[in-house]
This record gives sequence, C-alpha cells and structure tokens, in this order.
Amino acid sequence: MKREELLELDIDKPDGGVYASSKAVFDSIAKPVDGFGEFEDMICRIAAISGDIRPDISKKALVIMIADNGVVAEGVSQTDSSVTAAVASLMGKGMSTVGVMTSGLDYRIMAVDVGIDSDERIPGIIDRKVRRGTGNIAVENAMSPEECITAINVGIDMVRDCMDKGIGIIATGEMGIGNTTTATALLCALTGMDPKDVTGKGAGLSDEGLKIKTDVIIKSLNRYKADEYCFCDLPTGPSEQKLHALSSLASLGGLDIAALAGVFIGGAMFHIPVVIDGLISAVAALTAELIVPGCRDYMTASHKGRERGESEALARLGLRPVIDAGMALGEGTGAVMLYPVIDMVMSVYNSGTRFENAQISQYERFEK
Amino acid sequence: MKREELLELDIDKPDGGVYASSKAVFDSIAKPVDGFGEFEDMICRIAAISGDIRPDISKKALVIMIADNGVVAEGVSQTDSSVTAAVASLMGKGMSTVGVMTSGLDYRIMAVDVGIDSDERIPGIIDRKVRRGTGNIAVENAMSPEECITAINVGIDMVRDCMDKGIGIIATGEMGIGNTTTATALLCALTGMDPKDVTGKGAGLSDEGLKIKTDVIIKSLNRYKADEYCFCDLPTGPSEQKLHALSSLASLGGLDIAALAGVFIGGAMFHIPVVIDGLISAVAALTAELIVPGCRDYMTASHKGRERGESEALARLGLRPVIDAGMALGEGTGAVMLYPVIDMVMSVYNSGTRFENAQISQYERFEK
Repeated sequence: MKREELLELDIDKPDGGVYASSKAVFDSIAKPVDGFGEFEDMICRIAAISGDIRPDISKKALVIMIADNGVVAEGVSQTDSSVTAAVASLMGKGMSTVGVMTSGLDYRIMAVDVGIDSDERIPGIIDRKVRRGTGNIAVENAMSPEECITAINVGIDMVRDCMDKGIGIIATGEMGIGNTTTATALLCALTGMDPKDVTGKGAGLSDEGLKIKTDVIIKSLNRYKADEYCFCDLPTGPSEQKLHALSSLASLGGLDIAALAGVFIGGAMFHIPVVIDGLISAVAALTAELIVPGCRDYMTASHKGRERGESEALARLGLRPVIDAGMALGEGTGAVMLYPVIDMVMSVYNSGTRFENAQISQYERFEK
Repeated sequence: MKREELLELDIDKPDGGVYASSKAVFDSIAKPVDGFGEFEDMICRIAAISGDIRPDISKKALVIMIADNGVVAEGVSQTDSSVTAAVASLMGKGMSTVGVMTSGLDYRIMAVDVGIDSDERIPGIIDRKVRRGTGNIAVENAMSPEECITAINVGIDMVRDCMDKGIGIIATGEMGIGNTTTATALLCALTGMDPKDVTGKGAGLSDEGLKIKTDVIIKSLNRYKADEYCFCDLPTGPSEQKLHALSSLASLGGLDIAALAGVFIGGAMFHIPVVIDGLISAVAALTAELIVPGCRDYMTASHKGRERGESEALARLGLRPVIDAGMALGEGTGAVMLYPVIDMVMSVYNSGTRFENAQISQYERFEK
C-alpha cells in the first residue's frame, strides 16, 4: 500500500446492531446484569467487529515486531543492542518469555524481524527487515518516509496472512532494546506531553539512567520540531493530523512501532480485533488511529503496565485495560494474558445457561 | 474446632527466605527487572506459603459456599430466595456461570450447601447445611454463635479435604440471593464505614432498590449495635477485636460468609494460598483476618469488582487485585480468571530461560 492509499483509507464502523444483539445474549444468561463487566463490552465489540453474533476467535495469533534503535548509542538502556538479536534468537526457538508463557497453548506466534541490527537470519523469525536498526533519533530521523511506509506494510501483511489462516484475534508484542525511548518520544510528539512527566524506567533504569533517557527524549523532540513536516509534502487532501502522525512516526519512532501501527491498521481493514500490549504497542495503536481514523474501534486494551505513557495512550484511545499488575515486559506478554480469560467469558457467552432454561426470571436491566 | 481453639489459633508467618529466593529466580530469568509486576510478588508469596521455592499449584480448586439470607424478605434484591436453590441446582450440573467458564479446565469445583433455604438435597452439591437460611438481620441475629462456629468449620474442613487431595491453591466463590446486603452490613460493622458510602447495586438494583437496600443495612446495623457483644461472653484472653469480628459475623453475616471465613482460616492453618473473589469473599477474608490475625498472609486478591466494599476490604487487608473489569457476578468467577494467568507466569518462573543460558548479562536491580 502506497502512502497516498494509506492516507485515504476509509475504515468501516463495526456493526452496532450486532453489538446490541450480543449484549442481549449476555443479558439472557442466568447471571447478574453486566456481571462480567468490561469483558461483556469486549466480547460484544469483538462480535461487532466480525459482524457476526457468534464470532470465531478460537484461532489466536501473537504478532511480535522486532527492531533495533539507533538511540541506544545515547545510553538510554541498561543493555546494548546486541540483546535484541539474542532475545530474538531465543524467541525463534520458543524460549523467550512469551514463548515459555504460551508453550502448550495453541496460539500462532509470528515473530518478525523488521529491523534487527544484524545481517544474520534468525531461525524461527520471519524476515521482513526494512533496515538494520533506525537512526539515532537524538541526532537524525529514525527512518525515511519510504522505510516508514514499508514497515507499516509489514504489519498489514501479517494481518492479511492471519486472515488467510482463519485467525480471529491478534495480540501485539515487540522486542527491541531502546524502544521505550522511541515510543515515549513519539507519544510526546503526538500529544504534546512533557517527557519529564511521562518517561519511565523501561526495563529497569537507575534514577540517573532515567535522567539521561529523559534528556535524550527532549533532545530528540527538539531536533524533530526543527523540521517537523519534512516528510509531509503532500499538496492537499489528507488532514494535518494524519501528516503529523506519519511524520512523527518516521522521525522519532522505531521500525517495530511502525510495523505494529500497520498491524492495527490491518485489523481495521480486515475486521480482526487487535489486542494492545504495553507502552510500545499502545503508542503504535494511537499512531495508527491518528493516521487512519477509525482503527480504534478494532482495538482491545489488555493490561495497564508500569510505564505511564501506556495509560496516557490508552486513555486517548478511549480504551480501558482489564489487567492491572504493573508489568513492564513486552513481547506481548500482557496481551496474551487476556486470551485464556477471554476464552472463559466467551464460553459463557456461547454456552451459558439462559434464564428461560433455568426456570429463573430474567433480571431487569435498569441504568448501567 | 471449638470457639476457644479458634480464638487462640496461632498462624505461622510464610517463609521469608523462600520469598527472597523466589524473587532471585525471577531476577535470573532473561526479562526486564520486575517485568511481571504484581504477578512476581504473587508467585513469590505462594512459594513462601508452601515453604518451597518450587510450589506445586498444578492442582487447583474452587470452593463455593451457598446459603440463603433471611434479609431478602426486606426487598433488597431483584429476585427472591428460590433463585439460590435454582442456581445451586445448575451448579451441581456444571451449568452455572462458573461451571461453564471452567468446563474443560481441570479445576476441582466444590460447591457446598451451608444454608440453602430448602430441604432438598441437590445433586452435585456437598451437603453441609447448618440451617435453612439465616435470620432476617434487619430484625434478628443472622445465626447463633454455635451455628457461626459450625459454618466456619465447614470452610476449614473443605481446605483440609483439599490438602488431602494435593490441591495447591484454592479459589473462593459464593452464591446466595441477598448476600451483598449481608456482606456490606458486616463490612460496615467491622470497619465503621457508612452504608451510604459503600452499598452497591449487587446483581442489578434500580436506584430505588439501592435506597431500600441501604436503609435495610442501616436498620440492621442499628439493631446490631444495641446488643453488639451479646455473643462475646468469654471472660478474658482473646482481644476485643477478635470478639467483635466473631460477634459481627454471627449477627450480620451470612452462612456463606462464615464458611468462606473458614476457608481463609483453613488456608492459613494448612499453608495453602486462597484466592479472594468479589465483595462477599473479600469481606469474609477481612473477617477471617480479624478473628485469626495472620491469615492475610495466605490470601491472594484476584479482581476489583463493581462493589466498592470489595476494594475497601482488600485495601484493609493490604492486598492488590490484578484484574480490574468492573465485574459483579460471584460464584468465584473473578477468582478463577486468575488461574490460567498464574499458570502462564508460573511456567516462566519454572522454565524461563536464564540470562546465563541466553548469553545475556543479567539486568542490575536498582530500587523498585
């Protein structure tokens, strides 16, 4: 998909009638009104996305985007970029954290190299490398406009592949040393937030490390502001907001973030719900919504992590996470936690005993 | 166990050394420091409870206490007491909400009749009926002191049975029309909170229904205060707090709450972690801690539900729920949601790749 096509994408609204019918199904089951709380809304939204009161989410995927970030040269992380390839190598063998978490579970894990800083092909990892890591955003643009579009297309392609395989729901994840720095810088560019308010310790920085990271993000934002619209030379048509988001993504983002934005866009294009994970995934989701408005309706939040930026991004999307455990891990670990829980609620939605079959009168619905 | 024995129970502290060793295991796994957030603390606490750095929680149970409440006569609920027996009947067939949710999962469901208002024996339900429902707490004590101790013992017995069967973790649940009323009244008696601040809509009351419920709770508390220590005639020894909690439980509580308090006490006695579910379970947990201090160390919170009283009880126990979805269902539905998620984290704890095996240097731990 070319940049022009992307900027002109028109996203359908999920089916409101199906949503209402799904809610009526929940209300007919012998349990308190809204007993499953947010999970009822989640499943009704999934039904509305699929356009089917009985959505099939039995096949589940996790798409993990992996890339390096030039900004690591500034000392924003405890470890260096070599760890990205090392963890990707584990991931390809199912031995990274999310691989061990989901071993024995029938989730399709698609781990994609969109920009690891290495020429080696890593067994078990899908090779869609756009370039070997991004530029150091403190001093230069992360990627060119073309590379950004290419990375977004990698995400869209993965969703198309999921659709072809009958997958009904996609969780997102990422791996890439330095990516809480790029995600936070991008979030600040998109929202105008102050890096001092939102920068977190990522995988575990000291107080001193946090100060360095915050300063690097401020420096990157200042550089970016000097040539904010450098990438956005389209004459007319797309709104300022779209151009701004795309420009910010290319200038400050990571290849992982761009590719994840593509996954969220793909979910909206192909009517597949996509689960947001942590900070990086949430910022990618917000970016996707700003580039292609309407994507948001196809997203589901999973957990509220330790990085404040994640909550900020989710709030701007109007999405509410249901797991709140102060996690900070990445790889899609929070997003996949939602899967077995959704399955539990879905089994009640599909097979729960109805009031009429239990000889109990249905609860009356007053206001929520 | 007699009342005197109960009041003199001495609960061990979980093993702090095992906790620290478990945390070191998490730190050695190739992932960010404290990456799993609250889940790391949860699993380290479970290890400390079992006294084993490799706790075996592969066998899991759900204990559901079922009882009727005389206060339903005051119109505090949308439905009448017959629904308790009707849902229990479904539960015995695995067709209630939590049964459908967990069908196909290898959890041992132990649903116990401690006080259904019926003489019928319900297939699939363990019969430990103490009496047919409680007295109407608006006008009389819920149960006698002896009945209260008997109900607590039902809970302790269930945990002993779980221990004999090698069960490593127990979730709690309940069913009983009117039990958000009794739980809220008891919570107010235990904490001094104002019913106007904490009474919720339970399974789905109208605004008018909520007002009636609040007034009934106020009336019950006023009755109770008139003869607060009626049950507590022990001469010396146990502290005022213990006597107060036990007296409040018998005067205002439900048989389900008393039996669940017994499950929490049993967990502490037999070193098995017990998972709190919603309001009723949380109030039972707080009651258990007040009667037998130290029980709290054996408890795990699961979810934050819609009833404010639940959060208040958890906060007083110093426990933090990890699922936050505005649920209001009961039966242990929130507590069992924790199980597949714990299993995911536990598999990383037990089998996650260590930094040393991944040729990655271990992250340094700075302050939390």
